[in-house]
Amino acid sequence: MNKKAVVYIRLKDGVLDPQGITIERAIHNMGFDMVSSVRSGKFFELEIAGESGQTEQKVDEICRKLLANPVIENFSVEYEK
Amino acid sequence: MNKKAVVYIRLKDGVLDPQGITIERAIHNMGFDMVSSVRSGKFFELEIAGESGQTEQKVDEICRKLLANPVIENFSVEYEK
Repeated sequence: MNKKAVVYIRLKDGVLDPQGITIERAIHNMGFDMVSSVRSGKFFELEIAGESGQTEQKVDEICRKLLANPVIENFSVEYEK
Repeated sequence: MNKKAVVYIRLKDGVLDPQGITIERAIHNMGFDMVSSVRSGKFFELEIAGESGQTEQKVDEICRKLLANPVIENFSVEYEK
């Protein structure tokens, strides 16, 4: 049975987000002053084929070792199906 | 009243995702063969201050004109609070 893990990666609170700041400025330049802050993040959709057990531990290890930089980023995982 | 709009940006189906392919290969090199595909995406969390009406139309315009490249990317928006 296949399932999908979606890994969300965010900068930790207090870590400067130059991309978010630039986008916020661009939004204000478009005339939309109602946007008071922008934070950027990324996500990865992992298709998991054939349950082999301990999927959540394995995905957690993939996040810690490969996808997220634990010094400046937090991650969270959501499972679909 | 403040609310938060989260904009998710994905590559359209069929558009090559070199970052996803590279990550998939790295995951396999870690010994995790159960991951059959990886697609990458990004998201932006927009804090919306002081409801000025038509927020959803404005956020939609921000997505179309600034955040997403409509040639190769789709976007979706979720509102919190």
